[in-house]
Amino acid sequence: MSRKISRATAIMENRVALTAFSSIVGKEEGAGPLGQYFDEVSDDAYFGKETWEQGEAELFHKTVKLAMKKGGINPDTLDYIVAGDLLNQCAGSTYGINGLDIPYIGIYSACSTISEALMLGAMLTDSGLSKNLLAATSSHFAAAERQFRFPLHYGGVRTPTAQWTCTASGAIVLSGAETLLDTPDSPVIKAVTTGKIVDYGVTDASNMGAAMAPAAADTIKTFLNDTKMSPTDFDAIVTGDLGGIGTKLLISLLDKDNIQISDNHKDCGSLIFDENIQDVHAGGSGAGCSAAVLAAYFLPKMKKRELKNILFCATGALMSTTLSQQGNTIPCISHAVHISIS
Amino acid sequence: MSRKISRATAIMENRVALTAFSSIVGKEEGAGPLGQYFDEVSDDAYFGKETWEQGEAELFHKTVKLAMKKGGINPDTLDYIVAGDLLNQCAGSTYGINGLDIPYIGIYSACSTISEALMLGAMLTDSGLSKNLLAATSSHFAAAERQFRFPLHYGGVRTPTAQWTCTASGAIVLSGAETLLDTPDSPVIKAVTTGKIVDYGVTDASNMGAAMAPAAADTIKTFLNDTKMSPTDFDAIVTGDLGGIGTKLLISLLDKDNIQISDNHKDCGSLIFDENIQDVHAGGSGAGCSAAVLAAYFLPKMKKRELKNILFCATGALMSTTLSQQGNTIPCISHAVHISIS
Repeated sequence: MSRKISRATAIMENRVALTAFSSIVGKEEGAGPLGQYFDEVSDDAYFGKETWEQGEAELFHKTVKLAMKKGGINPDTLDYIVAGDLLNQCAGSTYGINGLDIPYIGIYSACSTISEALMLGAMLTDSGLSKNLLAATSSHFAAAERQFRFPLHYGGVRTPTAQWTCTASGAIVLSGAETLLDTPDSPVIKAVTTGKIVDYGVTDASNMGAAMAPAAADTIKTFLNDTKMSPTDFDAIVTGDLGGIGTKLLISLLDKDNIQISDNHKDCGSLIFDENIQDVHAGGSGAGCSAAVLAAYFLPKMKKRELKNILFCATGALMSTTLSQQGNTIPCISHAVHISIS
Repeated sequence: MSRKISRATAIMENRVALTAFSSIVGKEEGAGPLGQYFDEVSDDAYFGKETWEQGEAELFHKTVKLAMKKGGINPDTLDYIVAGDLLNQCAGSTYGINGLDIPYIGIYSACSTISEALMLGAMLTDSGLSKNLLAATSSHFAAAERQFRFPLHYGGVRTPTAQWTCTASGAIVLSGAETLLDTPDSPVIKAVTTGKIVDYGVTDASNMGAAMAPAAADTIKTFLNDTKMSPTDFDAIVTGDLGGIGTKLLISLLDKDNIQISDNHKDCGSLIFDENIQDVHAGGSGAGCSAAVLAAYFLPKMKKRELKNILFCATGALMSTTLSQQGNTIPCISHAVHISIS
């Protein structure tokens, strides 16, 4: 059973193993520096469907099925699917898993969705409530642009601070101690910190890195304080999609509290694109960005013991287009997951 | 620690007490048959703010604060807030709790949100991961109409099958065995069933009762099968917002499986308005409808032992306006929570 060491942080006392993971991305993401790591790269932004939103649901569906295939399991084996995404009403997830007949725990945490799914999934697994569950999310560039900003056909010029919502999906199977899926090569979740809403008053929906950085700083600080760990205990402290601008802010915010993470900080949004070659402005973003980079890049490196401890903190801007247009600020959140392999 | 009796159903083995509950509704809801039961009725659809969406966030905020006040606790006492709502990006919740500094587990389950929040909250409480947490949701008639259907100023004629999204919010404090809040008069959660997505192919966003009824039927059947309980074990089997049309469908669907619930079935959407006097068409709906009716009507009746066992199954239509407009069907879900007092 998990042990709470603060109201936000829980230590896992049983094995919560990440036993299978899959990632599928779009063409632009496949052309980036991590292209070789993803399970599949699709040249078709519609994923064989008629609209971008239907395409995102299909991308979600394919990624979830691929995780099950890689784990050698079928939907019946899964106690729960914990999932959400950026589309209004989490349509990528709900349409993506429609027909799979798996008890569904719908979550919304914007681009920190995969962190929230892993955090909740770890608590349910450690508590014996789940033998195997699937944590998953997705995002889609064209669907997100027209929902959150402008339709692509409008041809709006993106600001220098804008990030590129990745067309990407990541799915991860979490397994308890008694399942056959678990092997000594499976990374495990050791601890989780549930984030609070942090709002520094940013109102610019095209500068999400700046909006989200304070939430990441708050959660990282809480995690380190609660666990008495230091940044050097980790091979990497991984944020979701702060991009170039948000990363600078995060490092400077933590520096004020004498927490230095610049030596081992990695940001999925900065890793996924080559900003010198790809015209993505301030880096990648989107719920699928951190999920796919975790599943494709970090977790396989952990299996090979190239990395042994990472603190994974996807970051979410919980902005509402309606409330943004009404002049409101952007509330943000980040949940932390300590992933380890011995 | 909870005991799983199927992959969807968990039995609570410790006390998970519903120790404080609050409800605030709008004018139309206050004028209905349950008007006297709500903690507060607001004549102002804007709740003192400038827009309906900001008003919904304020309604959410006031309801959450009222639950804490009634329980005699402050935000520091809460391990988590588990919340979501109907607004895009769950803005009612995220803006409504902004500034409260409580670890936040964001969920999306449309009008079944309060069931999902209680289900997850019960699992976290029973597992020792939470001492006190808050489960909450909201909805707002005018904000929902313009988001999901037509702006009110358009003056569109509502169809006979349309339901009236309630302007309402409900918040419930869940407490573990060792907290001072718990008394012998607190109802407790005995078991929960996590719903699956059920999609019978309904595409009419103005006929949600029909879309949701099969999901409620599936979850009620699963709960009864898993627990070996029968409908007569309950003083009431409570659905969220099926309304008149969905209720008929639910009863006939369960009847096919020889499950008779018509004697003790209650629907929050049918209870909240008087259809003969109030022009709401097929009844009330909205995430706040079932949450406010549970908090205002059912739980106080349980405290007084007028009801001893209820099976509470809020129902959600996980429809996306975008995918609905693209001709897709409406996936639905319902989670079941068995609430009891001895």
